Amino acid sequence: MSFLPAEIIKAKRNGQALSYEDINEFILGYARGTIPDYQMSALLMAIFFRGMTKEETLSLTKAMLHSGEVVDFSSVAGFKVDKHSTGGVGDKTSLILGPIVAAAGVPVPMISGRGLGHTGGTLDKLESIPGFNPQKSLEEFVELVRKHLICFIGQTKEICPADKKIYALRDVTATVESLPLICASIMSKKLAEGVDGLVLDVKYGSGAFMKTAALAEELAVNLMAIAQGYGKKVTALITQMDQPLGRYAGNSLEVEECVAIMKNQKFVGPHGYDLYEDTRELSLQLSAHMLFLAGKGSTVEESYKIANDMLVSGKAYAKFEELCKIHGGNLAALPKPKHSVVIKAEKHGFVEAFNTEGIGIAGIIIKAGRAQTTDIIAPTAGIEFHAKIGDEVKEGDALFTLYGDDKDLLQSAVPMLRSSLTISLQKIAKPSLILKTLS
Amino acid sequence: MSFLPAEIIKAKRNGQALSYEDINEFILGYARGTIPDYQMSALLMAIFFRGMTKEETLSLTKAMLHSGEVVDFSSVAGFKVDKHSTGGVGDKTSLILGPIVAAAGVPVPMISGRGLGHTGGTLDKLESIPGFNPQKSLEEFVELVRKHLICFIGQTKEICPADKKIYALRDVTATVESLPLICASIMSKKLAEGVDGLVLDVKYGSGAFMKTAALAEELAVNLMAIAQGYGKKVTALITQMDQPLGRYAGNSLEVEECVAIMKNQKFVGPHGYDLYEDTRELSLQLSAHMLFLAGKGSTVEESYKIANDMLVSGKAYAKFEELCKIHGGNLAALPKPKHSVVIKAEKHGFVEAFNTEGIGIAGIIIKAGRAQTTDIIAPTAGIEFHAKIGDEVKEGDALFTLYGDDKDLLQSAVPMLRSSLTISLQKIAKPSLILKTLS
Repeated sequence: MSFLPAEIIKAKRNGQALSYEDINEFILGYARGTIPDYQMSALLMAIFFRGMTKEETLSLTKAMLHSGEVVDFSSVAGFKVDKHSTGGVGDKTSLILGPIVAAAGVPVPMISGRGLGHTGGTLDKLESIPGFNPQKSLEEFVELVRKHLICFIGQTKEICPADKKIYALRDVTATVESLPLICASIMSKKLAEGVDGLVLDVKYGSGAFMKTAALAEELAVNLMAIAQGYGKKVTALITQMDQPLGRYAGNSLEVEECVAIMKNQKFVGPHGYDLYEDTRELSLQLSAHMLFLAGKGSTVEESYKIANDMLVSGKAYAKFEELCKIHGGNLAALPKPKHSVVIKAEKHGFVEAFNTEGIGIAGIIIKAGRAQTTDIIAPTAGIEFHAKIGDEVKEGDALFTLYGDDKDLLQSAVPMLRSSLTISLQKIAKPSLILKTLS
Repeated sequence: MSFLPAEIIKAKRNGQALSYEDINEFILGYARGTIPDYQMSALLMAIFFRGMTKEETLSLTKAMLHSGEVVDFSSVAGFKVDKHSTGGVGDKTSLILGPIVAAAGVPVPMISGRGLGHTGGTLDKLESIPGFNPQKSLEEFVELVRKHLICFIGQTKEICPADKKIYALRDVTATVESLPLICASIMSKKLAEGVDGLVLDVKYGSGAFMKTAALAEELAVNLMAIAQGYGKKVTALITQMDQPLGRYAGNSLEVEECVAIMKNQKFVGPHGYDLYEDTRELSLQLSAHMLFLAGKGSTVEESYKIANDMLVSGKAYAKFEELCKIHGGNLAALPKPKHSVVIKAEKHGFVEAFNTEGIGIAGIIIKAGRAQTTDIIAPTAGIEFHAKIGDEVKEGDALFTLYGDDKDLLQSAVPMLRSSLTISLQKIAKPSLILKTLS
């Protein structure tokens, strides 16, 4: 029987498990353009409703992975490790943990995305540094990792072209929220990097893709199963995203925060604690697990100590400066926003909750993030968070500061940002950052 | 909030009922080309899984109906009535009931389709008559119905353009088998005809779209609800399609059968009964219900008598000849097949069952039917059925005769046709043709 796309769609629609051969023909046909968008979107919706077995999810990942190239790191000695985060507002740990791990002698090849929604992605943050150019060929990428143990590049057309095309289609056909599709999309790209180990930061909460810890854990378990199926070492941290991470959200502002942390600075805010602390701690924890997978340290505690040494000694910052040089970035010229607008508390109480999606929308309004992939980001636009969950605020206390170069845009985001924070009269406990570790 | 197709898809995916406005914008956007195929196919698959409420199905029908024109029959006096059949092998009743009803003075405007699968559609059958041209403008159509009370045309681009586009998409995205989509597709086209009444022939069995009587009845009830929602009179017959209807399947051969019936001929087959009987009886029953809806006869029995009079008196045949003349068809020149191949029983027993789908595939092999809409039909290709369910056959008795102009094609269809009939050693009861009538 010859290959009939409509029969494959029908089989999945009827709840049958698809073979690797069928999945592979469908994915490759789509990547090559012989299967049209409308058949892929029907299959995606059928997968949304019917799900996929572990076997099928592995097949899908494999087909997407082999729609493009797998980076060949055989010329680079040592255990290559990367991190993947499911993302959230103010999530900037890649810029710190990459330099920490590389400074400790472990190669960190990072292929990052641009952001859609919220604030920018890792690449957008790095590109706020004047001159920073993440465009390298895969050969240059390998060579730079060999020489410097670290390099950040963007998705290239050689890496998982099927995923790129499918992801764009999912976005406009209401088929984003499907566990097997999410897993295959994430893992095909990470496997294409050719790493030996992977640390996952799977977030839950109002600002995360997964709203509950249980859903985040389910995603983590599924991602780990794929990585393990490919013989990769993998650890997952389930972390809280009920509020923004750190002091800032916004591209150049997040770089500033990371630089400050790597320079061992603190920023004690109005409520008496260091607003860099959660960013620093999560970066160290993730670094520790990456180093542990790479065999640096015989316990995670030992690995943590190594990571902390890299940070405190300034070696991580030196590596970050080296990274900027590799990519042509002039860190000293990091732009500063021209304007700011402070949003103050209108009543006394305790910060109860953030509507992190509302913060994301405010970010899009001020052009710190994108509504559409073609939108251009304003590098200096961003938000500073003065108070976090559990903090007691008085009327007139600063809650947020909006930053950017276009004062009118900042003003227009005020109502959305103000409404994204709830103040309660009851005392609220501070949430803990890391819920659990799976390995 | 502006109209976002992906949000509509998501709402349906999540099981929400869609408003008329949302459905209408989506359907019209698709018909106009501002909504792409891939979003429509995702919505169709979501509808497949989530279904639609009666309200939504009515909205969908309305949106599809108003994507094009509704024929204006206000210039034609009398109650306009049509029939719709869900189709099956050898189903040729339109060619008989149309002339019967028109001969009785009731206008029958028929917009028919071409066949896909099985044997040809009504238009394909008529086009096997040399010169028969069903292409008329809607204005000519109305004028001919006014003058002759009957006219057969094909789907025009003015009638339900959204349905035409959606139907083609459903065919290649495994979204055909969805009750609301089926109902909206059928009823939008029938409502566009501008008729006052409609008789439905909803078939069940191995050769029907609906495999069980219960499913056929469910479809009938849903179709009737839409028709009634539009103030149309409607009756549905639930009829059996476990075996081919009548003596022949195939285009010119079915015309020959209809002509013979309208000429009051019988064809007593090898098992001692008239092989035209089921075609004749179903045509009369459907005609009777059409006439009854139009007020010809104060009971269905009286209407049946009128229909039978039209047939027996030769008035229906005269109307059929008039119809052929309207469309330029030369009935005397109906082509005869050049070759035939007889398939004989290999053992003694009783005809237990037909695999009517297998017969359909044999029909496609000999080009009596189409596998793809672009396939060209061989007008004389067809199959004669010598035995029906319950008949006792001896080794060497003829079961089928294959007809056509290409002997090699006929030979290649023999194994498929042979395997589509099961002979049992146990005596089998003959199934009844009409299960029930809903009105």
